[in-house]
Amino acid sequence: MTLPDDLDQQVITGEDKLLLPGFVNGHTHSSQVWQRGLIPQLPLELWLANVFDSTPRQLEQFYWGAVSTAVDTLLSGGTCLMDHAYLIPGQERETVEALVRGYREVGIRAVIAPLIQDLPFASGFPKGCLLPQSASSRSAAEWLALMEALIDEFHAPDEGIYIGLGPTGFHRCSDELLTGCAELGDRHQLCYHTHLLETRTQHRLAQERYGISAVQHLYNLGCLGPRTSLAHGVWIDEADISLLASTGATLVHNPVSNLRLGSGVAPILKCLQAGLNVSFGCDGAASNDAQNLLEAIKLGTILHTVSDSDYEHWLTPEGALHLATVGGAKGVNLGDRTGSLTPGMDADLVLYNLDHPSMLPRTNPLQLLVLGRPTQVVDAVWVQGRLRVAGGQVQTVDTHALYRALRQQPLNPETGRSQHHSVESHYRSVMLNASAGE
Amino acid sequence: MTLPDDLDQQVITGEDKLLLPGFVNGHTHSSQVWQRGLIPQLPLELWLANVFDSTPRQLEQFYWGAVSTAVDTLLSGGTCLMDHAYLIPGQERETVEALVRGYREVGIRAVIAPLIQDLPFASGFPKGCLLPQSASSRSAAEWLALMEALIDEFHAPDEGIYIGLGPTGFHRCSDELLTGCAELGDRHQLCYHTHLLETRTQHRLAQERYGISAVQHLYNLGCLGPRTSLAHGVWIDEADISLLASTGATLVHNPVSNLRLGSGVAPILKCLQAGLNVSFGCDGAASNDAQNLLEAIKLGTILHTVSDSDYEHWLTPEGALHLATVGGAKGVNLGDRTGSLTPGMDADLVLYNLDHPSMLPRTNPLQLLVLGRPTQVVDAVWVQGRLRVAGGQVQTVDTHALYRALRQQPLNPETGRSQHHSVESHYRSVMLNASAGE
Repeated sequence: MTLPDDLDQQVITGEDKLLLPGFVNGHTHSSQVWQRGLIPQLPLELWLANVFDSTPRQLEQFYWGAVSTAVDTLLSGGTCLMDHAYLIPGQERETVEALVRGYREVGIRAVIAPLIQDLPFASGFPKGCLLPQSASSRSAAEWLALMEALIDEFHAPDEGIYIGLGPTGFHRCSDELLTGCAELGDRHQLCYHTHLLETRTQHRLAQERYGISAVQHLYNLGCLGPRTSLAHGVWIDEADISLLASTGATLVHNPVSNLRLGSGVAPILKCLQAGLNVSFGCDGAASNDAQNLLEAIKLGTILHTVSDSDYEHWLTPEGALHLATVGGAKGVNLGDRTGSLTPGMDADLVLYNLDHPSMLPRTNPLQLLVLGRPTQVVDAVWVQGRLRVAGGQVQTVDTHALYRALRQQPLNPETGRSQHHSVESHYRSVMLNASAGE
Repeated sequence: MTLPDDLDQQVITGEDKLLLPGFVNGHTHSSQVWQRGLIPQLPLELWLANVFDSTPRQLEQFYWGAVSTAVDTLLSGGTCLMDHAYLIPGQERETVEALVRGYREVGIRAVIAPLIQDLPFASGFPKGCLLPQSASSRSAAEWLALMEALIDEFHAPDEGIYIGLGPTGFHRCSDELLTGCAELGDRHQLCYHTHLLETRTQHRLAQERYGISAVQHLYNLGCLGPRTSLAHGVWIDEADISLLASTGATLVHNPVSNLRLGSGVAPILKCLQAGLNVSFGCDGAASNDAQNLLEAIKLGTILHTVSDSDYEHWLTPEGALHLATVGGAKGVNLGDRTGSLTPGMDADLVLYNLDHPSMLPRTNPLQLLVLGRPTQVVDAVWVQGRLRVAGGQVQTVDTHALYRALRQQPLNPETGRSQHHSVESHYRSVMLNASAGE
């Protein structure tokens, strides 16, 4: 293992401690920190209307969103995250700059994959939508040019800051944008990250638009490969799983968000049996009102017992930690740098305090970490060998300033729900009345 | 509201605070604190074999188990718990005495319903079992005599200590014991608490043994009524739900444990729609390696979106808090004393700190409490008007002594798995090979 300055001069006894490689949060949207506790429990499509109506619009909010997400990640055992990042319209470059500043200050490994789309919101609904078809802000070519510029300016692998290609999802992207992102990703060897079949609505839309599965369509476009990670995949079927596994892509499982939005339960045990790489994500704080990786890992471990009565197929604590580390690292195209305690890897390390009340009694520490409810157990964190957390406190940024910012600038829960109301009747008529027939 | 000494002399401004009635943990087994992190992920019947093999046998462990469970309950918003309590064979009275001592010292409201059964472990399996049919330790009449004595000695409602009748479940109890407990409960107006249809195995066993549903059988025996609470009910059907609702009984939902053991998902939305009272439980720490009520409430809120695509039926944060308080109080036969902020009720109150980082930003505090991952947010707790937690610290017992005890006496994870191995092949042949046929 490569041990930079901070580490190779120290002896850490590790008494009453557990050392693990850092987890990877494979999917989140950092600016949603401001919407934590704000959006009611609704299915994705209606929830999205609320998210858009209340989304932050100030660069400073995006900076604090990155800092908050990075801090929550470090303090729940993560050393790397994938930020599928919202952009402020007209200030796209400045948004990414604010995020990069936040991640650099905290000192976490971050992939920033800006959410880009060239189809309007209403295109995400099957059977047409009664919403006015507002034009997208940019064409595919314009988005690709912007991404090229962002890569040139901000992609800095040696410093742990990465730009990824993040087309929102097939449902809101033209084929031109989807393939353009893939070509750009291939050219620069970057992550390709997109939402995939999160809801039944998207599943139905794919059938309606392509006549084939969304996975097959992405495959035909050349978007699937070892640098591709796909968030959710709740509605993939066995043929999709085989195809995904054959490409070396990664499925990012976001169990808290999937239940919160009623999206369903992704077929994770089948994915693992097919050899598909799986990692865990928190998803954004508007659909998982916490950003705690240990919580996502616990739920993702126990949830799948309901899909298979043979307990020999169940995910174990050890198996779950493998997904959170090795699986997560592969999913962000960093399998050769992070995710395991192996010579030659960067030192992304987390030291847990086994003496904390939530880790007692002293039985099986891995099981307590995954199946318990560990609280304040992260004692120290190193990212690329540099100390970021010590004694349970983030060393690099003033967390009190962060909490002051979050305290002082709440969004209004009554923020306009205009889009919600205009979408709801269409959603109910298309998605609920017909659901018995599927 | 009746405000005893500690409260009626104080002014509490409540600035940056949220005041709620205390939650009720409707189902746990306190001595399993020692088995937290110990038992692998297995279905209930195999898991039980491991639990029996490693169960604590010392009175001091039972005392600390009660203290630990009470502390975890208070610090996650609870003021009352139902301890479906294991007993040390031959030291049954002393076990209850140790539990009562623990609960009195912490100062929490506790119903102690000793787990009693007069059929051997092997009787819990359908189609016979290859295990030797070890005789039960006592007959039904002997258990009932013991319960009568425990009620006489320990039932002290004015002091917040209650004895309940806790026959393990139909699967391990004779009809004589089930009805004897009901008669005793009726005579003394006590809670009747039992496991109900936690697993498919139990569902099949009921059909095999009675030829009717287990709920109908309990109804025929006179065991169902407003003082009855039933843990789990994962495998109840719509007829069971209607029947249960008509009796005024309570279903205790234990979502973490149900997923951990692969028992399935209880039909909670259908129960609520039928007017059946529902409360939340953590279940014991051997099947929920934490005893955090807020975690159980969160999972019990978001889990049921998968059973009904119409979001208007989903449990909201406000609805979940109603189940945790009013529903919980009714489930332990204390609906006229606790569970709401109403004149005439006892003051079982919890004050939450809205200024904690896990409750930021300041959006909807009830949603953050239920859907977030609140940590160390319980600022103060009063039970029967007496201060039990202040500044986030339990005031009544030395928690450092508790944590020292837990630290110093771990059970061995390698504790004999003899019963596990003798049950496993039977379980696999009966429950897995036939599962496709059901």
